[in-house]
Amino acid sequence: MNTVLDELAAGLPADALITDPASTDAYRFDEASFCAAGAPLAVVRPTETEQVQHVLRVASAHRVPVVPQGARSGLSGAANAVDGGIVLSLTRMDRILEIDPVDQVAVVEPGVLNAVLSRAVLEQGMYYPPDPSSWELSTMGGNLATNAGGLCCVKYGVTADFVRGLEVVTASGELLRTGRRTAKGVAGYDLTKLVVGSEGTLGVITKATLALRPAPEAALTMAAAFASAADALSAVTRIMAAGLQPSLCEFLDGVTVRAIQDYRDMGLPTGVGALLLTQSDRGPRAAADVEAMGEICTELGALDVAVASDATESEMLMQARRIVHFAVEKLGSTLIDDVAVPRAKLVELLDGITAIAEEHDVVVSCPGHVGDGNMHPTVIFDRGDPAAVERAQKAFDAIMQLGLALGGTITGEHGVGVLKRGWLETELGELSLGLHRKIKEAFDPLGILNPGKVLAAD
Amino acid sequence: MNTVLDELAAGLPADALITDPASTDAYRFDEASFCAAGAPLAVVRPTETEQVQHVLRVASAHRVPVVPQGARSGLSGAANAVDGGIVLSLTRMDRILEIDPVDQVAVVEPGVLNAVLSRAVLEQGMYYPPDPSSWELSTMGGNLATNAGGLCCVKYGVTADFVRGLEVVTASGELLRTGRRTAKGVAGYDLTKLVVGSEGTLGVITKATLALRPAPEAALTMAAAFASAADALSAVTRIMAAGLQPSLCEFLDGVTVRAIQDYRDMGLPTGVGALLLTQSDRGPRAAADVEAMGEICTELGALDVAVASDATESEMLMQARRIVHFAVEKLGSTLIDDVAVPRAKLVELLDGITAIAEEHDVVVSCPGHVGDGNMHPTVIFDRGDPAAVERAQKAFDAIMQLGLALGGTITGEHGVGVLKRGWLETELGELSLGLHRKIKEAFDPLGILNPGKVLAAD
Repeated sequence: MNTVLDELAAGLPADALITDPASTDAYRFDEASFCAAGAPLAVVRPTETEQVQHVLRVASAHRVPVVPQGARSGLSGAANAVDGGIVLSLTRMDRILEIDPVDQVAVVEPGVLNAVLSRAVLEQGMYYPPDPSSWELSTMGGNLATNAGGLCCVKYGVTADFVRGLEVVTASGELLRTGRRTAKGVAGYDLTKLVVGSEGTLGVITKATLALRPAPEAALTMAAAFASAADALSAVTRIMAAGLQPSLCEFLDGVTVRAIQDYRDMGLPTGVGALLLTQSDRGPRAAADVEAMGEICTELGALDVAVASDATESEMLMQARRIVHFAVEKLGSTLIDDVAVPRAKLVELLDGITAIAEEHDVVVSCPGHVGDGNMHPTVIFDRGDPAAVERAQKAFDAIMQLGLALGGTITGEHGVGVLKRGWLETELGELSLGLHRKIKEAFDPLGILNPGKVLAAD
Repeated sequence: MNTVLDELAAGLPADALITDPASTDAYRFDEASFCAAGAPLAVVRPTETEQVQHVLRVASAHRVPVVPQGARSGLSGAANAVDGGIVLSLTRMDRILEIDPVDQVAVVEPGVLNAVLSRAVLEQGMYYPPDPSSWELSTMGGNLATNAGGLCCVKYGVTADFVRGLEVVTASGELLRTGRRTAKGVAGYDLTKLVVGSEGTLGVITKATLALRPAPEAALTMAAAFASAADALSAVTRIMAAGLQPSLCEFLDGVTVRAIQDYRDMGLPTGVGALLLTQSDRGPRAAADVEAMGEICTELGALDVAVASDATESEMLMQARRIVHFAVEKLGSTLIDDVAVPRAKLVELLDGITAIAEEHDVVVSCPGHVGDGNMHPTVIFDRGDPAAVERAQKAFDAIMQLGLALGGTITGEHGVGVLKRGWLETELGELSLGLHRKIKEAFDPLGILNPGKVLAAD
């Protein structure tokens, strides 16, 4: 019998330790394409922080890699298993420990689903804004580890903007508390924000204190169809410069609109160049806001501008946006990119993507959180055709290069994981990457935490 | 002649290097009480990033300490000179490089005054929210280094919440770029937030990309006078729990109100236990908001509730709040504390401070950003009386201990500097402090950047 497994078992309930490959296989991959995954030694499914500490102590003693994992809905391979390592699946630590309306905070364990938390706080008149498209399935631990974005970010910000403090199990199994519960606090360096978005490479988040806001008023939705995608993107820059504060600003190019309608009839106009969806939740100002947004679209030549006349119609449009991932997957295998650029560069980005698609003879679907300058160009290809696979990967890389050339980033919200670790130095430079490695070493001197993710092996 | 001074002079314009003690003396202290300062070797006043790099290269070569400095309005001694070190005064790097209404960002050098930036962006219909009371004199570099708070934080957050990216000169004189310009970006660890609030111990900020918001609508102000300070604080928790989203929520206890009126007639009611000032900037909702806030105050027994009927009256109340520091200084020497506690603990905090004041026979003035749970209990004492000084220091320490016992922090917004470095481990614990030291070493292996600040010498 394996010593590591023996030691693991000694500190865990029997049902928390899975070792037979038939069962552990299900924990190997997240949703990313083209990211290798190893065969894990074991999967541990803890229910208590002490069990997480036990796992890290055993792992440190034997220098066994540990991969923290949530719902495996990630898109960069950050949660993929590594050979001979322990997958630490945190989905059973799913308690909402507290919701406090005076401090406007929630305290949660990492396995709580985003949607479960969002609904629980809403019942108490509060709002947890970050809403990745995966919110019905993704866990707060995964959201925190990747600093997840979502549809609301254009007005309210990303996951990191709503994290006050963390409880983190370190590589050596100690319990680190970062940050605070209070609205403000500047005692020492911001370790909280350092751990958020570090994709499980610096520690295992076992508890988080999250900031909430008062619930917003019901949003009004505007939808505008354009013949030209560039005109839709010009409308975005005009809407932002006008200070209209959209609470949502989403773009679907023609390929994506068609894919959605083919997948499920959501009443979208096909045969258009692009669809722009915006919302305002500014209460008494919302009607004037969406009208002003609509006027900007009309001035820019929109074929059709409609304001959702009721909540059902508005919800239908949002559902259409939320099923993009599933609809586009019907078109073939996908490589989903995640570049973000300054808003004024969105038209150049789309033009460049069109040119890249032509050059490499691939189809690219382009949905995007364009209010944030964040586009998800998705290269669609036939996995069975090696030449097509190669063209897809070249197009994918060319899109990242283009994003950087336009002053943007290789990843707006999905993270680096395995998928983009080769690109990280290109974005950050040698000096920054060197600091990254030193920080990694400060937290994880043995290199057992999610090795090979974010930072490529030396 | 001194080799270090020769080498410094070789890469600097003549007017950027000050060495005679009569002139350098003016750069020794910030506004903190009881914080030692050394005699600097030189003060350098660069106008270009290259000059900052030159200074750090020379300093690294000779292991000379460097203290980055802004307007010296800080309250923790973080900007105090150290013996034989270089004070790097960044006030002449004061250009606003860009204000972009589409990306809603400003790019600034560190010497730009907060008020100058705030007014410049307002002229373009945008808003930079963080507004420390010192905003007319404090620099953006200082605001960034301390992660400054202010009056607006209760609704909009602190400095760190508005920083997208930084240009930082490292201890070795290299140029590090952190973060991004785009609204979102998750490529690598969040070095930006790590440097913000690090009080000049990790690098010298030479450029910052700051997020802006559309300008808010004019705020309406409510003022409520209470016989009992505890009732005023109970009103705060009720206002927050009701989701009323004050854009400002300030508390002045009786001692502070009297000090302000004695300093300058601002029309405040003296002889009250406390004054609560709140604002709402929610446009069409603002009138109902401040009315609801007023009703809560009335229910809690306020002596008088008034809604400012015009902008002038409202501005007068805000001015009263902003001169607290100067008014209280007239009462004697001051030790300004900065504890923040969960909002529900504010009454306990104030009761405890009253007990501490009695026990140590000191007068304590208590203004506070109570919407954030952040109080500035200010111990007033006679510097000429050694026994009074000792009592003041004991009271000051007891207030921090109380803040921690109530689940709070030793510093909500002023920072650690020299003043509270002895308290940092008490708040953070040994594990966290050890990580702080490793991070410090990663950025500054020779320990030349603002040594002895935040982290006490080993």
